[in-house]
Amino acid sequence: MRTYKLTIAYDGTAYQGWQRQANTENTLQGTLERTISSVAGYPVEIDGSGRTDAGVHANGQTATVVLSGRVEDEFFTEKINSRLPEDIRILDAELVRNGFHARKSAVGKKYIYQLDLAEKPDVFTRRYTYHFPQRLDLDAMRKAAQLLIGTYEFAGYTDKKDEKSTKRTIYAIMICGQGSKVSIQYEGTGFLYHMVRILTGTLLEVGTGARSIESVKEPLKSKDRSQAGFLAPARGLFLDEVYY
Amino acid sequence: MRTYKLTIAYDGTAYQGWQRQANTENTLQGTLERTISSVAGYPVEIDGSGRTDAGVHANGQTATVVLSGRVEDEFFTEKINSRLPEDIRILDAELVRNGFHARKSAVGKKYIYQLDLAEKPDVFTRRYTYHFPQRLDLDAMRKAAQLLIGTYEFAGYTDKKDEKSTKRTIYAIMICGQGSKVSIQYEGTGFLYHMVRILTGTLLEVGTGARSIESVKEPLKSKDRSQAGFLAPARGLFLDEVYY
Repeated sequence: MRTYKLTIAYDGTAYQGWQRQANTENTLQGTLERTISSVAGYPVEIDGSGRTDAGVHANGQTATVVLSGRVEDEFFTEKINSRLPEDIRILDAELVRNGFHARKSAVGKKYIYQLDLAEKPDVFTRRYTYHFPQRLDLDAMRKAAQLLIGTYEFAGYTDKKDEKSTKRTIYAIMICGQGSKVSIQYEGTGFLYHMVRILTGTLLEVGTGARSIESVKEPLKSKDRSQAGFLAPARGLFLDEVYY
Repeated sequence: MRTYKLTIAYDGTAYQGWQRQANTENTLQGTLERTISSVAGYPVEIDGSGRTDAGVHANGQTATVVLSGRVEDEFFTEKINSRLPEDIRILDAELVRNGFHARKSAVGKKYIYQLDLAEKPDVFTRRYTYHFPQRLDLDAMRKAAQLLIGTYEFAGYTDKKDEKSTKRTIYAIMICGQGSKVSIQYEGTGFLYHMVRILTGTLLEVGTGARSIESVKEPLKSKDRSQAGFLAPARGLFLDEVYY
């Protein structure tokens, strides 16, 4: 029995999210499991570092898979890749100790949210960017982002009601602008359901002046989702890296 | 009666090429004509600067359209754009003299072909790049490109048998490499059916050492298509600009 850690990139546009579902074949986990199982010759399950929503992308999602024995280096990066749809690629496969788990062993994650503020949407980046044709005060957004860094109960920044714990630590939020392109990088211990997209929507409301810098603290105190901002669309979001 | 010159960007992935066809709705010309006609309230025809093949993209295709009268500036860039699929955008509309014709008035064109030489295909650029995981001798390709610059009969570099004239002038071929990304820019008076893609396939064969630098002259002399290189895939090709 051998455990492999996979690093996976995908264009999430065509998928109903990461998690395997009974009613559709069109999930990332399901597609990877079917492909690996068919080559291995026995059913395998893969465990992701977390679920990404429908339409969310990954530069470096991670997943663990347990095989019956050792495989050559090219098993994943050539054999499996050649059978996967071209919007999913296994970038790297690494033999790890048994018991290593992509989600439970993770200590942190980095997400990137990509925006385009240009007047007209760009036909070539539209699948990977949220087109938001407004003026943004990036300095105000950076000040608001500083108020979100630290360890808090993020219950007001998620759309899931029944999380066991909503305590998370955000280490850094970096907002970079280059011409009309803006990216927001988030690093933290982990992120709740919709959390990065709601944080992004809230920061965008600060950027347009629709809300004050200080107001981003309110959902942390009240734990009230309605005090946070709108849910930014999935297409701009990338799971960039998972830390172990 | 007013003539407008449109500058159009499109992601050609989902289309059966530029030219309107009786058996499919899924062409760029057809989609633009249906959309503009439905807003104008009468049937309009648009004339492109040329046809792009199925799967070829454009940063700056041009087309002319004749309307019954003058329209506000936003007619095309807002009204029409808001009704077009999101993989087609009218970037600019300009009132021109009647008689101006996107194809007949054009004096030159620029195409760009994008390649990725990385070992693994990139899931985010795969729609817009030809994945060609080989080592290329860019210097040899540049030398071969120099031999193609000038005015020649390019009958050996097209897949269409019955062109009235195959004489064209290539002004420049620029080959730029940055990491694993390589782009080839072509500028000339005009290009025959498949010509840019065959030129690209031929230059790639020079780059891998499969053929000599000098051999790119052969199809110019013999006018024999079989002496030119392979047809590079549509997905890497962009009609970048049309000159008037």
